[in-house]
Amino acid sequence: MDLNSMTYVELEEQIKKTKIAILPIGALEAHGPHLPLGTDNYLAERLAQKVAEKIEAIVLPTFAYGQVWSLRNVAGSINISNEHLKAILVDIGTSIYKFGIRYYVIINGHFGNNVAIKEAARELYEKIPGLKVYYFFYPGVSHIIDEVRESEPLPGGYFHACEIETSYMLYLAPEHVRMEKAINDTPNLPEDFEYTPTPWDRVTSTVVMGNAALATKEKGEKIINAAIDNIVKILKKRLTTKEGV
Amino acid sequence: MDLNSMTYVELEEQIKKTKIAILPIGALEAHGPHLPLGTDNYLAERLAQKVAEKIEAIVLPTFAYGQVWSLRNVAGSINISNEHLKAILVDIGTSIYKFGIRYYVIINGHFGNNVAIKEAARELYEKIPGLKVYYFFYPGVSHIIDEVRESEPLPGGYFHACEIETSYMLYLAPEHVRMEKAINDTPNLPEDFEYTPTPWDRVTSTVVMGNAALATKEKGEKIINAAIDNIVKILKKRLTTKEGV
Amino acid sequence: MDLNSMTYVELEEQIKKTKIAILPIGALEAHGPHLPLGTDNYLAERLAQKVAEKIEAIVLPTFAYGQVWSLRNVAGSINISNEHLKAILVDIGTSIYKFGIRYYVIINGHFGNNVAIKEAARELYEKIPGLKVYYFFYPGVSHIIDEVRESEPLPGGYFHACEIETSYMLYLAPEHVRMEKAINDTPNLPEDFEYTPTPWDRVTSTVVMGNAALATKEKGEKIINAAIDNIVKILKKRLTTKEGV
Amino acid sequence: MDLNSMTYVELEEQIKKTKIAILPIGALEAHGPHLPLGTDNYLAERLAQKVAEKIEAIVLPTFAYGQVWSLRNVAGSINISNEHLKAILVDIGTSIYKFGIRYYVIINGHFGNNVAIKEAARELYEKIPGLKVYYFFYPGVSHIIDEVRESEPLPGGYFHACEIETSYMLYLAPEHVRMEKAINDTPNLPEDFEYTPTPWDRVTSTVVMGNAALATKEKGEKIINAAIDNIVKILKKRLTTKEGV
Amino acid sequence: MDLNSMTYVELEEQIKKTKIAILPIGALEAHGPHLPLGTDNYLAERLAQKVAEKIEAIVLPTFAYGQVWSLRNVAGSINISNEHLKAILVDIGTSIYKFGIRYYVIINGHFGNNVAIKEAARELYEKIPGLKVYYFFYPGVSHIIDEVRESEPLPGGYFHACEIETSYMLYLAPEHVRMEKAINDTPNLPEDFEYTPTPWDRVTSTVVMGNAALATKEKGEKIINAAIDNIVKILKKRLTTKEGV
Amino acid sequence: MDLNSMTYVELEEQIKKTKIAILPIGALEAHGPHLPLGTDNYLAERLAQKVAEKIEAIVLPTFAYGQVWSLRNVAGSINISNEHLKAILVDIGTSIYKFGIRYYVIINGHFGNNVAIKEAARELYEKIPGLKVYYFFYPGVSHIIDEVRESEPLPGGYFHACEIETSYMLYLAPEHVRMEKAINDTPNLPEDFEYTPTPWDRVTSTVVMGNAALATKEKGEKIINAAIDNIVKILKKRLTTKEGV
Repeated sequence: MDLNSMTYVELEEQIKKTKIAILPIGALEAHGPHLPLGTDNYLAERLAQKVAEKIEAIVLPTFAYGQVWSLRNVAGSINISNEHLKAILVDIGTSIYKFGIRYYVIINGHFGNNVAIKEAARELYEKIPGLKVYYFFYPGVSHIIDEVRESEPLPGGYFHACEIETSYMLYLAPEHVRMEKAINDTPNLPEDFEYTPTPWDRVTSTVVMGNAALATKEKGEKIINAAIDNIVKILKKRLTTKEGV
Repeated sequence: MDLNSMTYVELEEQIKKTKIAILPIGALEAHGPHLPLGTDNYLAERLAQKVAEKIEAIVLPTFAYGQVWSLRNVAGSINISNEHLKAILVDIGTSIYKFGIRYYVIINGHFGNNVAIKEAARELYEKIPGLKVYYFFYPGVSHIIDEVRESEPLPGGYFHACEIETSYMLYLAPEHVRMEKAINDTPNLPEDFEYTPTPWDRVTSTVVMGNAALATKEKGEKIINAAIDNIVKILKKRLTTKEGV
Repeated sequence: MDLNSMTYVELEEQIKKTKIAILPIGALEAHGPHLPLGTDNYLAERLAQKVAEKIEAIVLPTFAYGQVWSLRNVAGSINISNEHLKAILVDIGTSIYKFGIRYYVIINGHFGNNVAIKEAARELYEKIPGLKVYYFFYPGVSHIIDEVRESEPLPGGYFHACEIETSYMLYLAPEHVRMEKAINDTPNLPEDFEYTPTPWDRVTSTVVMGNAALATKEKGEKIINAAIDNIVKILKKRLTTKEGV
Repeated sequence: MDLNSMTYVELEEQIKKTKIAILPIGALEAHGPHLPLGTDNYLAERLAQKVAEKIEAIVLPTFAYGQVWSLRNVAGSINISNEHLKAILVDIGTSIYKFGIRYYVIINGHFGNNVAIKEAARELYEKIPGLKVYYFFYPGVSHIIDEVRESEPLPGGYFHACEIETSYMLYLAPEHVRMEKAINDTPNLPEDFEYTPTPWDRVTSTVVMGNAALATKEKGEKIINAAIDNIVKILKKRLTTKEGV
Repeated sequence: MDLNSMTYVELEEQIKKTKIAILPIGALEAHGPHLPLGTDNYLAERLAQKVAEKIEAIVLPTFAYGQVWSLRNVAGSINISNEHLKAILVDIGTSIYKFGIRYYVIINGHFGNNVAIKEAARELYEKIPGLKVYYFFYPGVSHIIDEVRESEPLPGGYFHACEIETSYMLYLAPEHVRMEKAINDTPNLPEDFEYTPTPWDRVTSTVVMGNAALATKEKGEKIINAAIDNIVKILKKRLTTKEGV
Repeated sequence: MDLNSMTYVELEEQIKKTKIAILPIGALEAHGPHLPLGTDNYLAERLAQKVAEKIEAIVLPTFAYGQVWSLRNVAGSINISNEHLKAILVDIGTSIYKFGIRYYVIINGHFGNNVAIKEAARELYEKIPGLKVYYFFYPGVSHIIDEVRESEPLPGGYFHACEIETSYMLYLAPEHVRMEKAINDTPNLPEDFEYTPTPWDRVTSTVVMGNAALATKEKGEKIINAAIDNIVKILKKRLTTKEGV
């Protein structure tokens, strides 16, 4: 069900069975000494695959380039502007609608992409009323996070390469985690951190925003599975109520 | 040497050894009943890997979305506008320069991307004089193609999912070729084909533009290896003459 | 200290004393049968004035036009696109920097403006390093809200013309509240409300998102004063540490 | 009839009676030592109110930010580009049409806004044929000005913070005039003033372009009332001939 | 001194003698039954040549495409948007500065171009401080027009294919005037003509806005020569005062 | 049949007979010591006239400003960006369709314009299905060139101010050729010339890219006449098959 490897003839067959396409989107961004630059890409891609196993859907190639403002001064970060990212997401939606997709499900692994994704979804809402766009960034999991978390959350809810995200990776892409390098480096955020543009290299030298050493596969599994369940539930409900497009 | 899987710490080490980053770029586009939609992605990605084996370079994640005008009416085609594609390529160049890359090598597997890539390269030429941008679309192979080709070339030099491109796939991504479905379907192009916008679905129903059945791994190997040699030669020359950036 | 009513000669005097300019920004948007369309404008404007009383600052004329996507189908909503709103905010910042302002404080009364404001702040961060941009939307008050609130919060944290916002108005602009028309109309939000574009007229006919009848001036006073204290604290800290621009 | 202070329910009632919305638009710009930076805002706003008293119309909040090129080097000037100003004016027109407005009357107090306003009107003319856009900048008063004026007009018809504009303020916003500071400072304009971009700070140090000391309330009243009469006459004629939209 | 016909070697010689380039710009637009669509092109081009005879200057090829909103519904009108026209004028200015031009003199034959030209001049003023941009549309001739005119001027000062413009053509491009078809067709303009977008085909069926039959070569000669004198005087003054760039 | 010199009444007559408009487009660009800067303008204009003699068509004024990246550092080059050039070409197409043109034939004399022209044609293809856009840059002449050429072609097929282009000029605009200055200056192109942005002033000091001294009128005539025949054949075929628009 991977668009990249299908022929157009096979796609025409699949489209008769499902109108859902899933786009995994992440970013390239420093994630501490223990996680790869493509952490958000691995997470989005594998989450998307797990969703696609539960609900018939075509999976688009992972979009590996995201909006990375806060960490753009650190090696390995590649930053696409919101404007350009939004434009590409609209182009993709426009094209897939043309060949029969009616549900465009964006599974996002990188917080910084949320603005561009929402803007793209709204633009498509006007432009193509027949296309329903969904966007998911680990939906409905905050209470599970509260439950499993052992470290203190940062004020403002920031998390990055921390106990939580490292746990996601231990569950979804363990071969890419250097757990022996996972450190605890919770920064003291300045009081105006949320209220004025602040590149993160000003507040952390390791780009870890929490205690990565506390991460476990089990924590990741719990949260990720809850996210998957929520995504599947929402998509299935929409389909069964036939409250279509 | 794959950017996606490195940590930022590892990247900082690599950057001391090489200033070259390779971006494989392709597209999703119908390629007949025997080749996958992502044909141009597979070709660009594997060609890039082969180049990177010969010349120390960091490989960026494949950009799987290209400019697909001519086949945009056929199932599976995803079309990014030239304007947006160019903008993203400039964003990527701007970011990689920031962390030390000085040679931005775009290996393209899809003809339709050439305009956006060249425009991006020229914009970066003005914007970042210290960044040298290269773009390669099977460079310097026309005489090899003439040599190995058994079918007649189409007027205007068009080729798509044909003897040549299928041969590339048989060499670089054979597991994705359904050779039993490879057909000969050379269309009669109208006389004004090159001189007025003409979506290809008007001239072919299979989107094969030649005789795919004549493809062999050997033909692909010969052409692709020549392309690789040319790319490597050009990059090496630049580096050894130290006619740097 | 109101820019509109000063002469340029008076401004030149003031600039010697303060480098802070406050821009109140709101929107025109339906706020139920009991609150005016300009609710967010009144709130931003009066909050700005109260801040300016505590910290020497020049107050710009209220920008009364905001990004109103969710309620754009209801009478009285005026919707400026994020792109245009951001552009204007950058223009204003560029101009005020030119005549000596070094702290551009945007006090926002309308949730929908947050994206454009943050984008503008980031653009100014690159463009004018000497200008420090702050953006405040009732900062640091969530625990006070939890304390005073009698009604249940909506899932997703949505609030609009409800117990809380009506309380703000009862404190800051009581002459514009028709309290006798304040109703309880907490909608049942569909499960995918946060995950797909949903104009609010699909979920509420009164555009009240909570129990407005529970609003009191005291609740508003408590929350608003906390917001003011936070804003003043952050601005003062920055100034006294002379961690200037 | 002030949109800011109405509820959406009240607006729905008003829309049954009138389809006219008036947008006052001015600018922040140095107006000499005797007039406030917001002179053009006060003039537009109060002129709009006087028109609205004579013809049933909804008055939008004053747009206080204009295109200020010529005086952008003088303290207090805030300059919005023509492109952005036009975009916002189109957004506003698009929104008010949606809730029933059919006549969008822009009352402008600042000469520099005329280009953006006309461009916006033309764009709306194409985009929304059902919306009639009017733009007024003291219409049809040149013969009255000639009649009351005691000072010599500047070549090219430039006027700013002069006998005429100060008279407008003495009539419409006298509480904001420091008449004791009103000076005569008629600059000698260079011969190419109209034919090449020339910031006004190059030709005047006070930004007064004439003899402000000759201003009187009576002169202002005469001209302004003529402008109001012309606006009302044009709007009424359109309405009575039912040569609607 | 015509750029089109010079070699680059000859240009390099000329640049040592003059830093002035003149761009004639007109439009294609209906001009009644007696004047060609390219009337504004002929006028601008020949006026430019006459100026260049009096003051050493390089003449660029005529830009024959202008902003034609008012007559865009009449056969033969070609309408370039203000935005695009401005962009091209900036591109031209940027290029000629690069090869040594320091005075970019735009001689305009079409009223509708004035906005784009002024905007372009202002953009170049910021972008290239060393380039001085002049724009002339029959400068300083209103009193001569008043003197020679036999017909009544239209309210608002509109003129098109009328006594005056036809006289210009009789002087500058008589071979293109069909004087036997010159008619008097002064339209009654509606009262709101200046205050709301009004395509001219709504008010005239011949697109003549006055009495073309009264045109004479002598009238044209008088006005055009005055315009030329003014242009030359302004340019010479600038050069002799060496108040250079 | 020249649009510039027709009245709108005459055009209305012509439109009954032909729906074809030809736009000649060239550029200002250094063409060696023997050819004028406007070489591409002369060629496009005269080629267009010859085509119009064979096929009834309206000829638009020559667009003399093109995309000149490679030679933009040499005196006399004027460079319009692809984006702006494309926009103008779309504006022109949109306008001529409005007055009845159905075939918009762009005859291009400058290689660098090809990208913008093709992009404009594609945009018009979507925007105005009833308008058929053709673009010709010496179509179908490569075998004739091979036949007449005495000098070796450059690798990559580059040609500029060389044997071939000079021959075109000797046939179409001989009065503008300084044949006594025609030189042979075939540059050695660096190996990466086609693969990275390279301004031509880096590889040639005369901007001649071949042996201009070998040019003859006869060679030019042969190639140009073949190009004309091809253009006419394609246009006629389209018209006679009535496979209209």
